[in-house]
Amino acid sequence: MSYRRLKQSKSSKARRGQLTTRRGVLETPFFMPIATKAAVKSLTYEDLQALEAQIVLSNTYHLMLKPGNSLIKKVGGLHHFMNWDKPILTDSGGFQVFSLSKIRKITEEGVEFRSHIDGSKHFIKPEDSIQIQLDLGSDIVMAFDECVELPAKKEYLEKSVELTTRWAKRCQEYFVSNLRKVTNNTKTRQPLLFGIVQGGLDKGLRKKSAQDLVSIGFDGYAIGGLSVGESEKEMYKVLDYITDELPEDKPRYLMGVGRPENIINAVKRGVDMFDCVIPTREARHGRLYLWRDGLRNYKRLRKVTKTKQLNILNNPKSCYKTINITSEKYSKKFEPINAESKFPVLRNYTKAYLRHLFSVNEPLAIRLATLNNLEFYLGLMEKIRRAI
Amino acid sequence: MSYRRLKQSKSSKARRGQLTTRRGVLETPFFMPIATKAAVKSLTYEDLQALEAQIVLSNTYHLMLKPGNSLIKKVGGLHHFMNWDKPILTDSGGFQVFSLSKIRKITEEGVEFRSHIDGSKHFIKPEDSIQIQLDLGSDIVMAFDECVELPAKKEYLEKSVELTTRWAKRCQEYFVSNLRKVTNNTKTRQPLLFGIVQGGLDKGLRKKSAQDLVSIGFDGYAIGGLSVGESEKEMYKVLDYITDELPEDKPRYLMGVGRPENIINAVKRGVDMFDCVIPTREARHGRLYLWRDGLRNYKRLRKVTKTKQLNILNNPKSCYKTINITSEKYSKKFEPINAESKFPVLRNYTKAYLRHLFSVNEPLAIRLATLNNLEFYLGLMEKIRRAI
Repeated sequence: MSYRRLKQSKSSKARRGQLTTRRGVLETPFFMPIATKAAVKSLTYEDLQALEAQIVLSNTYHLMLKPGNSLIKKVGGLHHFMNWDKPILTDSGGFQVFSLSKIRKITEEGVEFRSHIDGSKHFIKPEDSIQIQLDLGSDIVMAFDECVELPAKKEYLEKSVELTTRWAKRCQEYFVSNLRKVTNNTKTRQPLLFGIVQGGLDKGLRKKSAQDLVSIGFDGYAIGGLSVGESEKEMYKVLDYITDELPEDKPRYLMGVGRPENIINAVKRGVDMFDCVIPTREARHGRLYLWRDGLRNYKRLRKVTKTKQLNILNNPKSCYKTINITSEKYSKKFEPINAESKFPVLRNYTKAYLRHLFSVNEPLAIRLATLNNLEFYLGLMEKIRRAI
Repeated sequence: MSYRRLKQSKSSKARRGQLTTRRGVLETPFFMPIATKAAVKSLTYEDLQALEAQIVLSNTYHLMLKPGNSLIKKVGGLHHFMNWDKPILTDSGGFQVFSLSKIRKITEEGVEFRSHIDGSKHFIKPEDSIQIQLDLGSDIVMAFDECVELPAKKEYLEKSVELTTRWAKRCQEYFVSNLRKVTNNTKTRQPLLFGIVQGGLDKGLRKKSAQDLVSIGFDGYAIGGLSVGESEKEMYKVLDYITDELPEDKPRYLMGVGRPENIINAVKRGVDMFDCVIPTREARHGRLYLWRDGLRNYKRLRKVTKTKQLNILNNPKSCYKTINITSEKYSKKFEPINAESKFPVLRNYTKAYLRHLFSVNEPLAIRLATLNNLEFYLGLMEKIRRAI
């Protein structure tokens, strides 16, 4: 059993637990920084260690095109390639095939598409996606699914969900029969395989998708096809019922979500795993996530009452703020970027200095902002785990 | 006396010494990493500390335009702004005014120019340059000079050298009379002022420039207007005689030079100080400086014979190589970027990984290459000091 629930909130579906992978035990709920092209933009593995990231996510689509999965396999996997010895989750490539590339044709067999880099033609089928992820040495492998942009016609969605289920079945069969080739075949050395629930905003389809996947049987279940154009309210509505369709003894992963309040609202609906480009992408545009007074200091937090701790679950938006450091108003703010940071560079450099670095396009700006935002997001998850 | 010669080579004019500034003693000969816009591109002050950089150079022209010297003065100077407590040398802005901006008019009084950023009109006179450098809190202030591009007509060069000398005199007078305003007026708390020898490739003019500056009297002497289009041979020819015109008890600074062999050849002609964009700029284009076997390992170096050590002075090009890490041939080189580096990231990441980072435009690539090249350049200076 890879997932173990340690604690169940009484006031919501929020749960704290542990997910065991072949590269260590992950405390849930957790957030995965995104190492799209085998690096979290501007950071080294030393930075990720200092951030105490438990796991990172890397993108199959990007890596299969550059530098190519066969090259990464040759060096002994993504962990060796990027010098990272903790778990890595790889997406299936599906999302990028459907969002970045020019799709030529979706068939029962798979998808023909053109690379967004050089226009070269590629064909990927569910089995290929799994094989690439096994080549990469992924610890959590995602099934290959069709991602439908919302809004979508019910008729199309219906067919798509059925296709995704058939693909999921093929993924699972390929995964199981090829595991022995890539591992020494002991359970503890095997990666995990997750299925992805689709179905748009249609309750019937979502439930059917979940039930079909559960009957195939996966190590965990992702909720895909959300945060793709629908409102937050619509997203929460899906989460309100979908986790009830998923086994209690398996982890649930909400893909590509989100802002701190989205994460908290999803945790309260029973979600355990998250990834999102927000902290890193917004950092590159100068948006910093900062704790408001009172929740900033970890040590202080440990001493506050249980009631106050719970505040982060009940009123997330009041606990933090974002600032746009590129704004003129920070040009003379000679106060630390983040006085409570564990990183000396964020305590010793001023907001005015960081603003200057952005205004003259110094690459250091991105690094500092990225460190700040990932520390915030990983700190957020720690606070959430403590508050459950 | 700010400069003290500790050792004089018997086989060349090379000398080892110490330059005392208000922010500490510098071992000469030394190299200054360039922090153009108040940051060595992609590096933090922690990185510079780890590199054991003794001093950095920052650019008056860039900083006066962005974020502006008054803002930096407000925060207590460049050291506070960029969180760096070791010495900073600032250039006078002259070189950039003449190379980057559109010059409107050079008069006896100063230079009218347009900003290369927004085309705004500015006027800078020698006194302004000194005041800006004092505002920045520079530890080594450079006189404002006219930089003439080579080749140049003798007639123009002659007038230019005379103008530079008159400007140098004004700089010196302004510097002395304004020092008391910015320091507590004790000698040890004062910055140093350097004059800049000009004169192109004309021996007579160069000698005259040097003699005129020496008669004004500066804390050190820079050799400017070289490495601006002339051949290496022509540059060495100037160095062959120019250091003899400069006082033995003052430091000599060859501005904007150069490749390792240029630095070594200049050291052998009696130069003590260097700055150059080469290690950092080339890093950004994927060119790495690496020691050849035998000279790579510092510890090993300490044990080798005196004769072997001197090799670096006698045959610099045989001691190192440069590689273009973006080349296809590194895509499968699963060996450390630099096995002898003091930085774990350079020992643990492979050449293939760094090549990948460059090929997908990851900002981390620049940081790793910059660390490598500055470690090489600062290590080069250490080897030179030891070999003298």
